[in-house]
Amino acid sequence: MLTPYHTAIESFRRGTDTPRDYLERTLERLEELEPRLKAFASLAIPRARIAADMATQRWKAGTPLSPIDGMPIGIKDVIETFDLPTAMGSPTYDGWRSGRDAASVFALRDAGAVILGKTKTTEYAGSYPTDTRNPHDYDRTSGGSSAGSAAAVGAGIVPAALGTQVMGSIIRPSSFCGAFGYKPTVGGINRGGSHDFQSHSCIGVIGASLQDIWATAHAIVERVGGDPGAMGLVGTRDLGAAAQPARLALFETPGWNTATAQAREGLLDQVERLRKQGVQIISRRDDPQMEALESALADIRELGSDIFGFESRWPANSAMYRDRLGLSPLIHASMERANKLGLEGYRACLEKRAQLRRQFEDIAGGVDAFITLSAPGAAPRGIQWTGDPIFNVSASVLGAPAVSLPLLQDDGMPLGLQLLGAQHTDQRLFRTALWIQGQNR
Amino acid sequence: MLTPYHTAIESFRRGTDTPRDYLERTLERLEELEPRLKAFASLAIPRARIAADMATQRWKAGTPLSPIDGMPIGIKDVIETFDLPTAMGSPTYDGWRSGRDAASVFALRDAGAVILGKTKTTEYAGSYPTDTRNPHDYDRTSGGSSAGSAAAVGAGIVPAALGTQVMGSIIRPSSFCGAFGYKPTVGGINRGGSHDFQSHSCIGVIGASLQDIWATAHAIVERVGGDPGAMGLVGTRDLGAAAQPARLALFETPGWNTATAQAREGLLDQVERLRKQGVQIISRRDDPQMEALESALADIRELGSDIFGFESRWPANSAMYRDRLGLSPLIHASMERANKLGLEGYRACLEKRAQLRRQFEDIAGGVDAFITLSAPGAAPRGIQWTGDPIFNVSASVLGAPAVSLPLLQDDGMPLGLQLLGAQHTDQRLFRTALWIQGQNR
Repeated sequence: MLTPYHTAIESFRRGTDTPRDYLERTLERLEELEPRLKAFASLAIPRARIAADMATQRWKAGTPLSPIDGMPIGIKDVIETFDLPTAMGSPTYDGWRSGRDAASVFALRDAGAVILGKTKTTEYAGSYPTDTRNPHDYDRTSGGSSAGSAAAVGAGIVPAALGTQVMGSIIRPSSFCGAFGYKPTVGGINRGGSHDFQSHSCIGVIGASLQDIWATAHAIVERVGGDPGAMGLVGTRDLGAAAQPARLALFETPGWNTATAQAREGLLDQVERLRKQGVQIISRRDDPQMEALESALADIRELGSDIFGFESRWPANSAMYRDRLGLSPLIHASMERANKLGLEGYRACLEKRAQLRRQFEDIAGGVDAFITLSAPGAAPRGIQWTGDPIFNVSASVLGAPAVSLPLLQDDGMPLGLQLLGAQHTDQRLFRTALWIQGQNR
Repeated sequence: MLTPYHTAIESFRRGTDTPRDYLERTLERLEELEPRLKAFASLAIPRARIAADMATQRWKAGTPLSPIDGMPIGIKDVIETFDLPTAMGSPTYDGWRSGRDAASVFALRDAGAVILGKTKTTEYAGSYPTDTRNPHDYDRTSGGSSAGSAAAVGAGIVPAALGTQVMGSIIRPSSFCGAFGYKPTVGGINRGGSHDFQSHSCIGVIGASLQDIWATAHAIVERVGGDPGAMGLVGTRDLGAAAQPARLALFETPGWNTATAQAREGLLDQVERLRKQGVQIISRRDDPQMEALESALADIRELGSDIFGFESRWPANSAMYRDRLGLSPLIHASMERANKLGLEGYRACLEKRAQLRRQFEDIAGGVDAFITLSAPGAAPRGIQWTGDPIFNVSASVLGAPAVSLPLLQDDGMPLGLQLLGAQHTDQRLFRTALWIQGQNR
């Protein structure tokens, strides 16, 4: 299986392994699994080998560019790379090439990372599926929309891949594929050259470890910052040690009643273990503020869909103008819904969102994290449906950082435990997550 | 000379003129002037004739799609159209085609407007000049960065053209070319598919009349809204009547001492006339709040440059990675400055900007508009320098709406009178502007 990159670099330092050898193991695994997995939309293997050779030289000389120098990485196919198409999971972008690197990809190259290829996405990072399979069961979906990124990491092909999330597109597929997943505070990672235009959409990272994810996100933001006008990911390059939380909020979200019994029990077991470790747990059952928040979030999926849909009209409208059959029925329906909502309805949604964010932040300031499931259960069977984002849309709409840890199981498949935090407390969230992960060893 | 489109449509209604005839007059003027003016980067004449014919049918049938149905319009060459390259005024984008319409361009087509072509821009909408000439004196610059849009409107070729402004790129060239110019409240017009990524950059309109500009901006926002997450331009389709302001703030900006004597006298004459009409005038000389604001804005150009530069690193960094000689020395220098500023310095700039916005809005709430110059004087001679944005950067950084009215003169050339307002009061600003324009008839 895959060596997380943060442990591999110890071997590079000792001289017992090299980035080129690491890449060759990646390529072997790719060759073995990809024909059935279908995680990649396009590959850049010759260029990747050159980049890995250059990284090998730097590690040998003791002058790596960053902790991810030489790390093979997959790029979700809505994010531009200068050498490969950005096909958006849609015939309307088939073979589309911008000839430039997205800000995040530029930063990754600048940090020495090895761009292995583009990972498959659902259509326009929405719900219409691609053909990627789940590495833990090829008869199931890997989730969406960052389908290929989660599958490639979950299969142990690459230690990290970029994704994007506006509803549940990072945390959910990470959960389904047994990978770690991270959706930062809104604005955290520069989206220049990424085709996820929506106002609460984020670029994030799916990875083999929390350390790999943090190193990747930080290496990007050090170099290109967050979205224009946003602070960008706040934190130090060194993630720091695991930190025991004092207080966690058990967060049901509107998804709780849709979750399988095994999923709920798994989470409640974790919570009970944490409580026994001395962590104080609050929930809607004993905390009126939590009860008010959970009630206020009852329709969060509809709110998220309304904002997502309205803000996604472009560029779909421009494509539809010339190529109606290039867009799935899902996009046609979403466009119709958005047109019905209208500009005034959209403005009301933005106000509602701002109000919910204030309500969430009021509680978030008093806890180390919110703890919940990453999905209602195992990845659905078949590849027609990428699964329910009901546990993910809260963090998306609230602009809150979220991480998924592959600590639970359902129906013989991996399932994620999700942590959410206050905006701009991403690093603290990671350190809390490290501690919870440690309790599961 | 050019008939403003809002008066031309009266003739369409009466049947004495048609959009196709209007376009043919546009094309005649284009043929006559363009060889020396160099306003256009590319043209779409066959498609424009078809669009004008279709608009002609609609006006004849009494079913126009909008008040700008059939209106020839130029699109700044940083904004994507599906049929033409988006060349960004840079060899690094030479012949670059996205194959899609920007959100604003999609909306214009949907409203029946006739996309005549792409108008020339300075490199990456920055300061490195293009070869466009000033229609009032071919030996002078038309300004920048919306160089071709201002020249094409000022020359009477088109009644409107899209521009973008992050420092002074709409209001300044409008001033130099004798056109009306409009930079909306930040977020006002959807920037999807426009390559002006900076956090206070705006798409705006340069036009032959305030009415044409309003009709254009409103037709876009009705259809595609503002930037994702922003309210978008607030107002009704019908601009409404001229409205006499009760109170105006004479706004010197840090530019006052750089302005020519004729420019300053011209503005002060206007202010004196308004005072005589019963408009109350406040200024830094008699109002402590205004004095505090003017002092606080002393370094606004540096603040604007820092934010602009930092947020402009991408996609220049991605281009520089592969084509150093494709970027001007100005971009190399700006990148160096931005790297020196760093993420922490940039965050401090954002805080400073937020604070200045609060200070500005406090005063803006109590006046109908701020009144100032649109530039320190006439367009500079030669085409190597696009002129000083010192009178424009305040509105840009503050996110405030601004209009330029071609009511003043300097050195035998046109000069704009600029009005600024509180965020989201764009329509009121237009109605104030209409009234001031009326006083000059």
